[in-house]
Amino acid sequence: VKNQLSDLGEDRLVEHLVGLLEADGPRREDVRVGAGDDCAVIACGGRGEDLLFKTDAVIEGVHYLPTDDPGAVGAKAINRAISDIAAMGGRPTHALLTLACPNNVSVDSITLFYRGCVAAARRFDIAVVGGDTAGLPDRNAAAMFSVSLIGGVPAGKAVLRSGARCGDTLYVTGALGGSLSSGRHLSFTPRVEAGCWLRDQGVNAMMDLSDGLGIDLPRMAHASGCGFVIDPDDLPLHAGCTVADAMGDGEDYELLIASAVQLPARCPDGLPITRIGAMAPRGEGHACEGGWEHFK
Amino acid sequence: VKNQLSDLGEDRLVEHLVGLLEADGPRREDVRVGAGDDCAVIACGGRGEDLLFKTDAVIEGVHYLPTDDPGAVGAKAINRAISDIAAMGGRPTHALLTLACPNNVSVDSITLFYRGCVAAARRFDIAVVGGDTAGLPDRNAAAMFSVSLIGGVPAGKAVLRSGARCGDTLYVTGALGGSLSSGRHLSFTPRVEAGCWLRDQGVNAMMDLSDGLGIDLPRMAHASGCGFVIDPDDLPLHAGCTVADAMGDGEDYELLIASAVQLPARCPDGLPITRIGAMAPRGEGHACEGGWEHFK
Repeated sequence: VKNQLSDLGEDRLVEHLVGLLEADGPRREDVRVGAGDDCAVIACGGRGEDLLFKTDAVIEGVHYLPTDDPGAVGAKAINRAISDIAAMGGRPTHALLTLACPNNVSVDSITLFYRGCVAAARRFDIAVVGGDTAGLPDRNAAAMFSVSLIGGVPAGKAVLRSGARCGDTLYVTGALGGSLSSGRHLSFTPRVEAGCWLRDQGVNAMMDLSDGLGIDLPRMAHASGCGFVIDPDDLPLHAGCTVADAMGDGEDYELLIASAVQLPARCPDGLPITRIGAMAPRGEGHACEGGWEHFK
Repeated sequence: VKNQLSDLGEDRLVEHLVGLLEADGPRREDVRVGAGDDCAVIACGGRGEDLLFKTDAVIEGVHYLPTDDPGAVGAKAINRAISDIAAMGGRPTHALLTLACPNNVSVDSITLFYRGCVAAARRFDIAVVGGDTAGLPDRNAAAMFSVSLIGGVPAGKAVLRSGARCGDTLYVTGALGGSLSSGRHLSFTPRVEAGCWLRDQGVNAMMDLSDGLGIDLPRMAHASGCGFVIDPDDLPLHAGCTVADAMGDGEDYELLIASAVQLPARCPDGLPITRIGAMAPRGEGHACEGGWEHFK
């Protein structure tokens, strides 16, 4: 009997929950993209922009260790959500921070966490406009920080993960692998400038690589109704990393792009863009190994 | 040495964190109200509306018990955030749901939780457009559900808690006390219609009563730079409740209003409005006893 979250795994859990939302929720004409992409997209009606809406949580022992620098953890907490806005080709604007932790956590560590988070927000001109604080009853409970983020994208121009077409070339920004062992998962830069530039190039699909190419690329292919082929020898690897690391380590926070338009070797800001394969007819191509899946 | 969250208490913690945001954050001209009110208010520029932005979390063992009906808990999770939008005189429109729980939680209970949450959302024409799921490493960890909500209010018309003036009459909607013992904390109706109507009457200040009148009224007075006087005999009490219950039980989710305009005994939808006192010069009046404060 499949009855616990661990039996389902993250993708099937999300699919199940999205099914509930679609069955029972109201139909609002202003929802351009609901659950299932990097962000929700809402027709805002003003300034020629759509609103992007995203929430993301980091949990002690899952996304960071108690011994990690609290300022870096704060930066990571918001940068993960910024990365999802970037993956739609949008710019983040306003954030709310939720803190849930035991009462015996030190004010100093929370202060450092907030400073790291606010400094990372300032880098992208994001105003932190509030949040929520909640005490956890168990003194040994894992702390949790959740970030809610809104942003904007030119109306109708958000780049979805479902827009890839058979024959599109697949690209990734930057390099992959070793994010956890190198500490890069705490210090990465969300690809906001690259994402906006790629949107303007007219790419067909985009998503950020958070769980590893081996899990995220099949998600893009599934959402787009395509298969895919990649050439492992073409993957841009961080120093010391293997193809398996690039496929499975996760937390790269680079952009995965499907485009019918040929892209240059670098974004205008110098960030490398590497061709790694192509979208194929559904059922063709091959599955990737590895990557992170939660609830397993 | 004050070094743990429990030494500060919720209000001083929030004051400390808001200070960090104001010191380090960017100045964005589109932020009409930042941290410290029921919601953030952001100039949206479109449709003659400002955007309201709110996040709120419920935690097992704090806001509900493991034995509570999951559907009612789901409704409570979103209704708490809706209540904050109502307290600004706004209407909620779109929500994201974050679920953090151990892997061994049953899919059935999560399904019931989501159904309750989505049904409560539908009642106010709120589209749930996504969210986040995260597994907690400890199988005995408390589950946490966080709701992020956006909404709209006519531009410049959000009713703040800081708008009360000396001499304003104080009112509350509905009745107070006994929310936890009666189970009303799981089944209350957020006062969206009343909040919009009160906004249109031109009331000066409004907030929702979540922590108890004894804590929330001093917060409104402090934010407005006023004192206050209430007549305990005038408090509208739920059956079987005392004045102390009304002051201290919390989780009423009624509206507290300060108004220079005289209000009738009922809203157009029949909800009672009761005069309970008046705003006084700063330093005059008396402090309330009781109410809930977290992190103590």
